[in-house]
Formats: sequence, structure tokens, C-alpha cells
Amino acid sequence: MINFTLLGAGRIGKMHAKIISGHPEANLVNVYDVNTEFASQVANDNDANIAKSPIDAINDENVDAVLIASATPTHIEYLVMSTDANKPVLCEKPIDLDIDKVNECRNKIAGSSNLIQIGFNRRFDKSHASLQQAYVNGEIGDLEKIIITSRDPSPPDLDYLNAAGGFFRDTTIHDFDLSRFILGDDPIIEISAFGDNLFDENVKIANDFDTAMFILKSKAGVLININNSRRAVYGYDQRVEIFGSKGMMISGNQTPTSIRKYTDSHTSSKEPIYNFFIERYEQAYKDQLNEFILSIKSNSKSKVTFEDGRNALILANAAYESHNNKKVVSIDFK
Amino acid sequence: MINFTLLGAGRIGKMHAKIISGHPEANLVNVYDVNTEFASQVANDNDANIAKSPIDAINDENVDAVLIASATPTHIEYLVMSTDANKPVLCEKPIDLDIDKVNECRNKIAGSSNLIQIGFNRRFDKSHASLQQAYVNGEIGDLEKIIITSRDPSPPDLDYLNAAGGFFRDTTIHDFDLSRFILGDDPIIEISAFGDNLFDENVKIANDFDTAMFILKSKAGVLININNSRRAVYGYDQRVEIFGSKGMMISGNQTPTSIRKYTDSHTSSKEPIYNFFIERYEQAYKDQLNEFILSIKSNSKSKVTFEDGRNALILANAAYESHNNKKVVSIDFK
Amino acid sequence: MINFTLLGAGRIGKMHAKIISGHPEANLVNVYDVNTEFASQVANDNDANIAKSPIDAINDENVDAVLIASATPTHIEYLVMSTDANKPVLCEKPIDLDIDKVNECRNKIAGSSNLIQIGFNRRFDKSHASLQQAYVNGEIGDLEKIIITSRDPSPPDLDYLNAAGGFFRDTTIHDFDLSRFILGDDPIIEISAFGDNLFDENVKIANDFDTAMFILKSKAGVLININNSRRAVYGYDQRVEIFGSKGMMISGNQTPTSIRKYTDSHTSSKEPIYNFFIERYEQAYKDQLNEFILSIKSNSKSKVTFEDGRNALILANAAYESHNNKKVVSIDFK
Amino acid sequence: MINFTLLGAGRIGKMHAKIISGHPEANLVNVYDVNTEFASQVANDNDANIAKSPIDAINDENVDAVLIASATPTHIEYLVMSTDANKPVLCEKPIDLDIDKVNECRNKIAGSSNLIQIGFNRRFDKSHASLQQAYVNGEIGDLEKIIITSRDPSPPDLDYLNAAGGFFRDTTIHDFDLSRFILGDDPIIEISAFGDNLFDENVKIANDFDTAMFILKSKAGVLININNSRRAVYGYDQRVEIFGSKGMMISGNQTPTSIRKYTDSHTSSKEPIYNFFIERYEQAYKDQLNEFILSIKSNSKSKVTFEDGRNALILANAAYESHNNKKVVSIDFK
Repeated sequence: MINFTLLGAGRIGKMHAKIISGHPEANLVNVYDVNTEFASQVANDNDANIAKSPIDAINDENVDAVLIASATPTHIEYLVMSTDANKPVLCEKPIDLDIDKVNECRNKIAGSSNLIQIGFNRRFDKSHASLQQAYVNGEIGDLEKIIITSRDPSPPDLDYLNAAGGFFRDTTIHDFDLSRFILGDDPIIEISAFGDNLFDENVKIANDFDTAMFILKSKAGVLININNSRRAVYGYDQRVEIFGSKGMMISGNQTPTSIRKYTDSHTSSKEPIYNFFIERYEQAYKDQLNEFILSIKSNSKSKVTFEDGRNALILANAAYESHNNKKVVSIDFK
Repeated sequence: MINFTLLGAGRIGKMHAKIISGHPEANLVNVYDVNTEFASQVANDNDANIAKSPIDAINDENVDAVLIASATPTHIEYLVMSTDANKPVLCEKPIDLDIDKVNECRNKIAGSSNLIQIGFNRRFDKSHASLQQAYVNGEIGDLEKIIITSRDPSPPDLDYLNAAGGFFRDTTIHDFDLSRFILGDDPIIEISAFGDNLFDENVKIANDFDTAMFILKSKAGVLININNSRRAVYGYDQRVEIFGSKGMMISGNQTPTSIRKYTDSHTSSKEPIYNFFIERYEQAYKDQLNEFILSIKSNSKSKVTFEDGRNALILANAAYESHNNKKVVSIDFK
Repeated sequence: MINFTLLGAGRIGKMHAKIISGHPEANLVNVYDVNTEFASQVANDNDANIAKSPIDAINDENVDAVLIASATPTHIEYLVMSTDANKPVLCEKPIDLDIDKVNECRNKIAGSSNLIQIGFNRRFDKSHASLQQAYVNGEIGDLEKIIITSRDPSPPDLDYLNAAGGFFRDTTIHDFDLSRFILGDDPIIEISAFGDNLFDENVKIANDFDTAMFILKSKAGVLININNSRRAVYGYDQRVEIFGSKGMMISGNQTPTSIRKYTDSHTSSKEPIYNFFIERYEQAYKDQLNEFILSIKSNSKSKVTFEDGRNALILANAAYESHNNKKVVSIDFK
Repeated sequence: MINFTLLGAGRIGKMHAKIISGHPEANLVNVYDVNTEFASQVANDNDANIAKSPIDAINDENVDAVLIASATPTHIEYLVMSTDANKPVLCEKPIDLDIDKVNECRNKIAGSSNLIQIGFNRRFDKSHASLQQAYVNGEIGDLEKIIITSRDPSPPDLDYLNAAGGFFRDTTIHDFDLSRFILGDDPIIEISAFGDNLFDENVKIANDFDTAMFILKSKAGVLININNSRRAVYGYDQRVEIFGSKGMMISGNQTPTSIRKYTDSHTSSKEPIYNFFIERYEQAYKDQLNEFILSIKSNSKSKVTFEDGRNALILANAAYESHNNKKVVSIDFK
């Protein structure tokens, strides 16, 4: 059994708590949140203790591993605490919104061999992962294009927008990572980004985007299109297409049932796709945790490293530079 | 150029006239219909002559071939006339509603080598025909099941119902033929039929069915399900499934465009399928005529014989017997 | 927490044990199997005790409910034991293969109000259940047809065949029940059945069928087609179509991922569908148990009653009679 | 009857000849090609005369209209000749590869009211056109994104490549036009282009691209992704997606039949999509001609104007500038 401390008991922390409790080899022992009401609810629901402080929660000798699902600005502090305590840590994305802080953290943890896994859950989605595996197996031959469609069902509120660090760092960061995941050893070298404000007032107030498109180019010449939106009335649109010398594979959207309906106005209709990430990626979140536990038990390297988290942020920053200067920006992951 | 006489200028005759005119190697020269208005309209639209009588229309020395699209009770008379004149004839289904008359006709034409093709258009549908060909090519291995769904968009009026000879002889006859087409040399030996009257008042008045299901069994043991309805609000539902030792193939429905729509109430929706046979089987009707012309030119045997027409009627009659006596009826094609 | 006794620790018992253990409100306390090795393995895997006898397993005062997953001939004995002990019982299908024994059991339990739920898992499949619910909600108008395709991936071995009671009682029984589930208050009144032996030698030896088709008719005139096979090379084919005055709904097959592949030989290909019932109906088995637990906790009536189990067997028996006598058989559920 | 002169009798001229001959209101009277063998073959096949020169072919008093399907460098000359003769002209894309020549031509024809239609056939594809119409009808609300996938089945030979004017001007030009067609009054204002050379040696020799991606932005903020390739092993990939405030519509690929296949290695597979433009857009080419004929007969304005042809070229030129300078290029259609 791996005993977990959970830091952060908001919407996503709650979900992680439930997943930890449901895992046959995991156990939730401590919960910490600045909001004590949140902490006590999640602790009660999962028979866990409420920790007094993050450091207590982490250093508790009963604790084997840490899951960070707190507000983004706290991630680095908790990551360093966990690493200092040599406790394997699964940290929600993004590591931080500020690349300088990320670099500083990188220096601090440089010597440690503590397991750090960043929460890019989409890598663990069965469909996306099968597609990546099929490419690795040669099923589509040489990779030429990746096309990622990633649209949220509806825009978040202003508080969220003000804290989230901007569309590219909060949302597209998943797609940047997914692109890197599929590319494998082939690094991204260029990016062209278009941010747009088409429909949401709060997004305007927050000086953010509600619509975006990107082209990225890898060293080997693979061209990647990412297209994002903060609103899709038909649900959480999550598609990945890979195209190569031997064919194409598409990881398509999913609906809760396999029902198709035929009426006088339309035929072969499915119901709306999953509404948002907690439903759509439920299994991926579980498999992400499972991978983390397997890595702890087998003492193996992280499948989604600190560097993966940092590189996705570098891409997001380059995207802003591209958008602001209306030019193609070269990427330097150094 | 093959010069045609068309007998019958109603809805389906009109369609055949247009198809003949559009064929690069066919020419419509004569049109006959008891309704002279119908005849003159079709003749005008296609630069053809109005014939005074069926016999004149057929015996005209400019005429190479005959297409019979008149009312069912006239089919046999015109078939015999054409055969007597030794003019290749394409005759709409059914040959007749009365098996005794069909047998009498069979005797009359027994000695002739005149080309007779029965208008089972579905055999020429690209999708259904590809499926049959795939089976012949061994792609699904040994055939074990055929499942035919065949539903009209809406019930005909009372006049049509009173003349049509009943649901099994008018509509299911296509599906009986399609089953025989797929089975090839393997004859149907048994049938169980359920007729039903669920929704249409005119159908009740005509003492007919609006809903039906059948199981047929072939000598080799292939089980066939046919299910029919006189109403499908989503359009003319035409599906064929074949199932065997190596897999399954389905010839599915078709929509006018390849558009799919995603809204807040349903996703991946196609528009309604083709409304009825003239739209759905437009190309099949063209390819049926083309096959007839090829057979004339190459002096080859008919692809859809008089026997095919007779055997489909025998199945329809057996279906009525099965329904009436609530038992499985053995088939005798002798 | 509901404490369970599990009777039967074979393939399906093992699955039930895991589902009970995984349910947040259920606990496996006792396991019994005539095969003590099976019993001890399942007990170990789930931290449960090995019971010495069925009666001990059931009467244990720590036990709140019973799950019967043993060999079919033991079902009735354990059902009666559980009812005598007034312990809610979830019993795998079929109740028994012999209708006389089922009737005898029915008399014995007649006065009891103990909760009995029969394991017709397909009623709990999200897709099939949504389709039934949509019909109840009026989404397809008046029901006119049900078409159930149910094909196993590959035939069982001879031992299984010899014990299973025949294709109609072992396999089609699910489809008979699913038909009844969809029909609701409208009873089935007639059946026509075709059994067939097309490909499997063991099935021949066991004097059983490997292929079958059925037409059933309800009192309201709904026509139902069921088609079964013991082999489908593309996986466990489970489809349900309902057709009515306002449209059609199809509960289609499901694949493990949402990937589609495009190559030079075929396009838009999905991977093979789920191989068999444990994968395909995993969630349905979970939801079946959950329903059972909800019924216990809320003291409400069974969602799948003893009568449902008995009626499905009556249909299976009528199907054999129809096949043997080549006639339509009237159903009497009295 | 509209009598046509056809200029150019190569692959695409041949196709146009056949379409003219098959149109009930059109007639092919003259054919001209520098290659007299090509000319005589097409003339023979369609009962037309071989013209001695383009000017003779056009000025022939029997001729009502001109179709230009000759090599690109001759388009402008023939366009001007036709306009001087006041004969309606349907001209294959592109008008020319050199914007200066196009502008010069524009000046020459400035005063004329002669009907000029540019051969952007995809505007007449039933699926693409329905999608555009649905947007106009408000079915997807406010437009936010267009995503066009357009991939040829296999690269052309070196001769073609050397004459074609480059990937963006020869191929993407269709997608630029299709984008403009969907946008309607909303002009494109910016473009970012990535050309790539990933697999084809001839393309390298011709100093051209085999792979490309583009982002375009309209004045209203609509973001457009175009992705092109010179090779798709599964056929001629032609998809258009529009996304807006009320939903999404996708005009998907099409296969010759509606067959789906299920085997032990893959399920629900369609056969490969149409191989190339002559098959995929057969009906669109017919409907394009029909529109041209309707415009002649009704004396109405062109549906695809000279300006449409010029604007698409301006976009292609801007795309090269963007690619070469690695920046977003502003568009000026003046």
C-alpha cells in the first residue's frame, strides 16, 4: 500500500482523493488545503486526516507519496518540500506560470533522484496513448502531421481566468505536451500562434483569449496544428489526428453510450460527447495514478518528467511571443 | 445504338424513359400508355413517338428492345408479345401476382432464346452488389446469415394498395430476390412469415400488412431475416448484412451529402437518408439498364431471369401460407 | 456496508467477487465452492472466509446478502436457502433449466417477501438501458420492432455445452429477457424459432445449435427478431435496435478505444469490439450489483424478478417446441 | 442549347468535354489543343470539330460559350479573346501564376460585362456547399473556425511540378478559395504559412513543397487552418470543418459504396475513399458547368468571379512571403 498526502482539496483535488481511495494499492492518509472546509470534506469522504500544514502533511512518517493539486503558485514550494523529504510526488500541471521560478526550482532539485511526475493526464488516455503507440510501432510509417483539436465546453469564470495564467499556459499546455509525447525524440523547433477574442466578455476583461490556433514544427519537419476554444456547445471536444507515410489514425470523441438515433430531422446521431475533463478523462486520471504507483514500486524513472512540464511552459511562452510579434518563434529548450 | 420501346409512362415509366435517354448507347423511340396524356408527356420529354398500341410499339422495325413499366396485370401479355417478336425485354417486377399465369407464360416462352431481364434493381446497387461479390470472393468465408432491413418511408394510398397484390408480393419480393441473389446456387427451402397491421388505416381496409418479419432457411442452412415496414420517418431504410465464418459486411444507408452536425442536443448527426427508391436506387436503375444493353450487345444470358421473377413470387406465396397457417412452409421451386 | 456471501467461485464467481470488493458499500465475507481450490483463491484475493457449506455461508449472522454464481443445477437450492434465511439474493441466470423445478421453487417462495434479483446483466448496460428509457419517454413513438443481434466470439468447449442446457436456454435467454425488458407491460404471445448447426463439431456432438434466429410477437403486435451465433470473429456482437412510429434507436457495439485508422486497404476502421461479456458488460455487472444494493437499502422491489427469470425460460422452452415442430408456438406465462 | 468551344484537351479537358456532352442543354462543337492528337481524340469522342486556332475556335459563330482547360500560361490570352468576342467563359484555375499578368488582364477586361466563371469546382460540391449554406442559414451561429484538410493521393511527376507554379499556387489555391467562399463578406486579413519537404524527391528537385500548413485570420477574427499534403495513401482526403457559437459541421470524406466490413483485425471499416479529384468531384464538376449554363441563360452574375481567382492568388503569394520570412503577412486585396 502506498500512503498518500493530498495537497489541495478543490474540484480537482476532490477527484484525485476519490481516485486514490479507489485504487487497490493506494490509501489517502492526509489532506491539506488552505480552505479548511474543503480539506475537512475531502478528509471525511475518504477516511483521511486533516493536516495542519503542507510540511506536516508531507513529512508525516506514514506518508509514502504526495499528490499536489493545490493552486498553481504553490506547486513549486510543495514540489521542493516533497523532494527534500524524498517522497515521490505527482504534481498537477502547470509546474508554475513563471519560467524563472521553474528554472530556479529546477536548480534546487537538480541533484535529487526523487520521483517527480507531472499531471499531463492526456498521455494516459487509452485512445491517445494507443495512437502514439501505433506510431511507435510503425503503423502509420513516418510521421508528417499532428492535428490536435481541444475545445472546452464553456468558458470559466473571471476568478479562474485571472488566476490561470492565460489560455496558452493553462489550456494549450496540455496540447503542447501531447504533441511532444507523440513526437518522442523529435524536438519542436518553431511555433506560430494566433490568439483571438471572439465571444466571451470575461475573457476580454481578463485580457485573455477564448479562441486560438497554432502551427508547430519539429526538427524532423513534422507540422502540428493545435486548435483551441473555450466553448463548444456539443461538449468537451478532444481529438488527435496523426498522419504519415503509411496512413492516418484519429483518436476521436467519445459518448457515454453507443446509441445512435434516427428521426425525421437527422440520422445516425449520437448523444453529446462527454461534457468536460473529469468525465472524459476519468480513466486517464486513474491510469496516471496507477503509472505513478508502478513507478514508485518498481523504482523506475518518471514517465512524465519535470522537464516535460518545463518544456510545455517554454512552448506556451514562445506562443505568446509569436502572437504578440506576429512572427514564427524559434524554440530553445535549454 | 439500341432503340427502345417503353410500355407504361407512369411514375416509374417516366424514370425509365429518362434513364434510356441519358444512356450513351440507348435511344427512346416509342412510348405507349393506356393513359395517352402520360404517354404524350414522356414522348415529348424524350423526343419519342407515341405508339398506338403495345403491339405496334413492339413490332416497329426501328425498335431493338422493350422496357415494360406498365401496370402489373399487363406484364405477361407484353412479355409474350416481345418474345414473339424476338425483341429483348426488360420487365419491371413482379412478372404477375398470380403464379398460375406466370406458369402459363413460362410454358409459352419455354422454347424462346429471347433475352428477358426482370427489373430487380437492387441487384445492381453498387453497395449491395459489392457485398455479394465480396462473399463470392471469400471475404467473409462461409455464409451463415443474411439480414435485410427494407422499410419504405410512408404508406402508399388505397388505390395503390388495392392493385399491388399485397405487401409480400409487392415489396418483400425485392428482398426475397436479394436473398436469392446473395445465396447464389444455394436454394431457399423454408420460410416463416409474420404479417402485421400496426398503424395504417388504408392498409387495414385493403386487408394488407404494414409491418412484417420473415425467417428463411437455405439448403446449406443459411438463416435469413427480412424485416419490412411501410413507414420509416427517417427515410427509405435499405440495409443488408451478411455474416459468415470470416466476418461480417454491412451495406448501410446512404445520405445525399457527407455532412455530420454537432449541436448541444446531438452529435455526429447525418441528414435524413434518401427518401425513396427513385433517389436511393437512381444509379442502380441506370446500371440495370446498362447491364441489359451489355447483354443485348454481347448476346449473353440474362443476369436476372424469368425464373428469378417466378421464384421470388413463389417465396411470396409461401410467406402468405406461413403467415396464415402459423407454421414453417417448405419451398418448392419446381 | 452490505456483507456478501458468494456461492460459486468459477470464472463468473471470480468476477462477481472482484465487483463486490470494489463496491464502496459492499464487502465480501464468505466464499463457497465445491471446488475448494477455487474457493480459497477467491477468498484470498478478496480477504474473505472460505465457508464450509452453502448453508453455513448463507446463515452466517455477519452476512446480509447472497450472490449465487454456482453451477445452474444448484441455483434453486441456494435460492430457497437464502429465502428461508430471509437474506436478499442476487442469482445468476438461468434459475434452472427445468421449468418444473422452477415452478416448484416458485411455490416454495410464494409467501416470502425476500428480495430476489435474477442476473440479467444486460438490463443494466448503459446503452441498452438508455434505449429502453428513450422508448418509455416516447422518443421513438409507438414501438413496432425490436431487432437483437447477439453473437458470442467463439464456441465453448464440450463440457460447457453438455452442462449448459442448450443454446436457447443458456444464451438466447438473455435476449428473451432483453425483449421483455424493452416491451414492458406488453407480453410476448408467439414465437417462431430456427436452430441450426453450421460449423462447430462439439456443438453437433452435444446435439445443440451454433446458429439461431427467432421471431417473437407481442400482444400489441410488436415484432421481434433475435439472431444468435456461437462465433463472430470480430468479437462479442451485441446490438439492439428499436423501431417505432417516430424513429429508430440503435445500441451499437463498443470498442476499447475511439481510434479510427486509414490505410491503403481500408478507411475509418475501428479496432475489434470487446471480445466477450466480462469486458463488454463490465460496467453492467457493476451497475447490476449496485441496483441490488440500492434495493436492499431502500427496501424496494426487485428490478429483475424471479418471474422474469421464469418467463425467459418459458420462452426458451417454447422456442424449442417451435423449432422441433416447425410451427409458431403460442406463449402461456401462467 | 449552349454550344461550347473547349480549349485544352488534356486530362482535365477530356473530362470537361464529357461533362459538356452529357449535359442536356450543352453541346461541344469545337476543340482546340496545341497537341493535335489530344484535340482529335476528344473531338472524335464527342462529335466535335477540331479548331485550327484558339481564335477560330472562339470566334466561330456557332459557338455560344468557351471552356478554358489549357495550360495555365495560356489562360489569360484565351480569357481576353473570349471577352473580346463577348462569349461567356468558364476558365480553369488558376487564372495565371503571375499576379502582374492577372492585374494587367483585370485592366483589359475592366469594362466588359462578359460572364467569366473561374473553375473553383469545390464550391459546387454538394457537401461543402451544404455546409456553407447551413452557416449562412445560422445553423452553427457565429463562425469562429474553419479547418480544411486537403491531401492528394500521390505526388505528381517532375514535369507537372515544374509547370504548376508551386504547391500554394496550384493546390492550396482551392483551399484559399474555399475559405473565402465560406467566409462570404468577411475578408481574410492575415496568413502564416509553413511549407515543408518531407518525402518526395521530385518535389525537392522542383524546389517545391510536399507538405504544408497554414493559419489564416479573417477581419471578424475567424481562424482558419488549412493542411495540405501531396500524399495520402488512403486516397484523396477532402474534409471541411466549420465551428461556431451554436455547433460544428463537418463535410467528411466519401467512399464509392456504403459498405462496412468486420473482421478479426478491424471493424466497421469502409473501403478507401475516392482516389482523386475526377472521381471525388465528378458531380461538382457537373454542377459547376450547370451553374455556368444557368448564369448564361438567366443573364445573371458569375458565382465565381475573376476577382475570386485573383484573390486566391494573392493569398498564395502572401503564403510564400510568410513562409520565406517566417512571419505573419497582412493581406491586401486591392
